[in-house]
Amino acid sequence: MALRTIADVGEFAFLSRLLPRLRAGRGTVVGPGQDCAVIECGGRWLFTIDALVEGVHFESGWLAPRQIGRKSLLINASDIAAMGGQPRFCVVNLGVPPSYPVRDLHALQRGIVAAAARCGASVVGGNLTRAARLSVSIALLGAAPRRLVTRQGARPGDRIYVTGTLGDAALAVRHLSAGRAGKLPVHVLRRFREPTPRLHAGRILVESGIVSAMIDVSDGLHQDLGHVCTQSRVGAAVRVDQMPLSRAYRALLGADPWLALQGGEDYELLCTIPERHVKKLKGLHARLACPITCIGEIIAGRRIQLRDDRGLITHVEASGFDHFRMRRRQGS
Amino acid sequence: MALRTIADVGEFAFLSRLLPRLRAGRGTVVGPGQDCAVIECGGRWLFTIDALVEGVHFESGWLAPRQIGRKSLLINASDIAAMGGQPRFCVVNLGVPPSYPVRDLHALQRGIVAAAARCGASVVGGNLTRAARLSVSIALLGAAPRRLVTRQGARPGDRIYVTGTLGDAALAVRHLSAGRAGKLPVHVLRRFREPTPRLHAGRILVESGIVSAMIDVSDGLHQDLGHVCTQSRVGAAVRVDQMPLSRAYRALLGADPWLALQGGEDYELLCTIPERHVKKLKGLHARLACPITCIGEIIAGRRIQLRDDRGLITHVEASGFDHFRMRRRQGS
Repeated sequence: MALRTIADVGEFAFLSRLLPRLRAGRGTVVGPGQDCAVIECGGRWLFTIDALVEGVHFESGWLAPRQIGRKSLLINASDIAAMGGQPRFCVVNLGVPPSYPVRDLHALQRGIVAAAARCGASVVGGNLTRAARLSVSIALLGAAPRRLVTRQGARPGDRIYVTGTLGDAALAVRHLSAGRAGKLPVHVLRRFREPTPRLHAGRILVESGIVSAMIDVSDGLHQDLGHVCTQSRVGAAVRVDQMPLSRAYRALLGADPWLALQGGEDYELLCTIPERHVKKLKGLHARLACPITCIGEIIAGRRIQLRDDRGLITHVEASGFDHFRMRRRQGS
Repeated sequence: MALRTIADVGEFAFLSRLLPRLRAGRGTVVGPGQDCAVIECGGRWLFTIDALVEGVHFESGWLAPRQIGRKSLLINASDIAAMGGQPRFCVVNLGVPPSYPVRDLHALQRGIVAAAARCGASVVGGNLTRAARLSVSIALLGAAPRRLVTRQGARPGDRIYVTGTLGDAALAVRHLSAGRAGKLPVHVLRRFREPTPRLHAGRILVESGIVSAMIDVSDGLHQDLGHVCTQSRVGAAVRVDQMPLSRAYRALLGADPWLALQGGEDYELLCTIPERHVKKLKGLHARLACPITCIGEIIAGRRIQLRDDRGLITHVEASGFDHFRMRRRQGS
C-alpha cells in the first residue's frame, strides 16, 4: 500500500489531527491552532511564525527583493493584528540559493527591517542558510492586549464582519500568473505585494470588548471563516451579495464573489460580533480608520451557507487555499 | 559586470557588513550577532532562530524523520545553552514537499515535541508550507540568566575551554557522505543525529561568573572561535595537540586534529575564562557533568595561531563551515 502523502491529506486535515495531541505546557495561555500562541513570560505575549517561499507564495519576478522582505514581516504582523496585539521583536531565518545576488539580499533585509520599524517592532536576530529556493521565515513576538480573542468564541446569532475589501490580492495573483499584471491598476497589485496588516483596527476591536472571535483572512475568506466555524463549533450564513469588493474588482469581475470567497492573502480581519454589541461597533467606525462590512451571521450547525438577496445558493464545507492541494491556483 | 552572489561573498562576510547597520530598538538588550538576542519583555528573555534544511544540513536517509524533528529543536537549544539560558517556548515552521509521507511528518513533529519537553520547553505554535525540500525552522524563546555572557568579552590571557569532544559529528558526516556509516560506532553517528545541547553546563558556567565569553561550536571550532576573536577584537593561540578527541576519532584519524578544528555540528560550548578564575572552574567540574578541556589562550592581535608542543605550526584566519562556501564538505 502506498504511503499517504501530505498532498493526499492536505494541510488542514493534517493539522486537525495533530493539534489535539499537542499539550499546552507551563506558561502557555493559548497553544497551537490560533493566529498566535499566547504565553506568560513576565506579562502576556503573542508568539507566531510564518514563511514566504518562492515557488509557493510567489514566483520569481512577482516581487522585488525589498517587497519580499516587507511582505514576510507584514504577514506575520497580520497574525498579531488578529489577536489585537502590538508587534515588538522578531527573528528571521533566510534560506537563500547560492546564486542569489548580495545586493538583492541587502535589499530584502532592508525591507524586513523597514516593515518591522513601521509596525513598532525590531529585528533582534537571524540565521542565514543555503536553500534551493528563496524562503523567509519570521517569528514575531508581540505584546498581548488585556482581553483574549481567539477563533473559538463565535456563537449563533453573532454578526460576521470583515475589514477593507476582499479578492484584490487573488486578482493580482491571477494576473501575475498569466503574465498580465500590466493590465491591473498598481493599487490592486499592491494588495498582493505590500499587504497592510490591520494592527490598529485589530487593537481597537479587541480592546472594545465587542468581538467574540477574530482571525486574519490569509487563506481566503471561505477557508478562514471555516477555521472560526470549526473551532467555535458553529456554522455561518454568508451574504455573498454583501461582500466588500473593490471598484477594480467589480470593474473586472462584476458582482461575482467567487474569487473574493476563495482567494487568499487579503490580510483583512474577519470578526464576529454579538448582535447586542453591533451598535457599539457603529460608534467605533471613525477610530477603526478602515471600512468594516457585515457579510452574514453565525448559525447553528457546521456548514457555511452562501446566500444572496433571493435566499440560499449552496451549502459548502470549509475550504480555500491549501498549499498542498492548490485549490486556489486551480481556480484561477 | 556580473552581480556578486552570496556564494561569492560568503555568509559571514555578508553578515559582517549587515550587522553593524541593524540598530537595536526599544527593549533590545543584545541585538543580532550573538547566539541569541536578549530582549526585555517583563524580565530578560533569550530569542533565537535556526533551521535544518535537507540537502544542506543533511541528505535524504541520513536522519529518520523523528531525528530531524529532534535535531531541529536541539540545535536551537544549543544557542540558548551558549548564553546560559533555559528554553521555554518555541514556534515551528515546516517546509514540506507535497510527496512527503504524512506518517513521517507526524514522526518529525513528535520528535520536535519530545525534544522540546526534554529541554523544558513547549511547542506553542507553528506553520506548515509547501517547499521543494524539507526544511524546519524553529524560533525558541528562553529565560535569560541574571548574568549576560556574549561572544564579546574575551581578553588576552584568558584561557580557552571546550566541553566534551570535537570532530565526531564531522566524522559522522564524512562517513554518511561516503556511504560508509556502517563502519562507524553508533555513538559517533549519534553525535551528528542527536546532538546534546549543553544546557546544564552552560547555565553553571554563566551563573558562576567566571566566563568572559561563550559560543556554541556549531560551524566548527575554528569558525566559532573566530567569531569570538572578531567580536572581542582579540586573537587566539590554540594547542591543537590538546584538543579533546574521542577514542573513536583517535582510532580512525590518530592525533590529526584537522577535522576537529574544521568540522561542524559539535554543539559543544567554547568559553573563555580569565586566568584568575581557572581555580574556580576546577571546583565546578563535578557539577558540570561533562568534560571541559583547556585548548589554548586568548592573545593580542586578530589571528588564530595553531600550536603544538613544539611551538607555532601556522597562523590562520577565522574560517570554517560556511553554507555558501562549502569548505567543510570540500575538506571531507
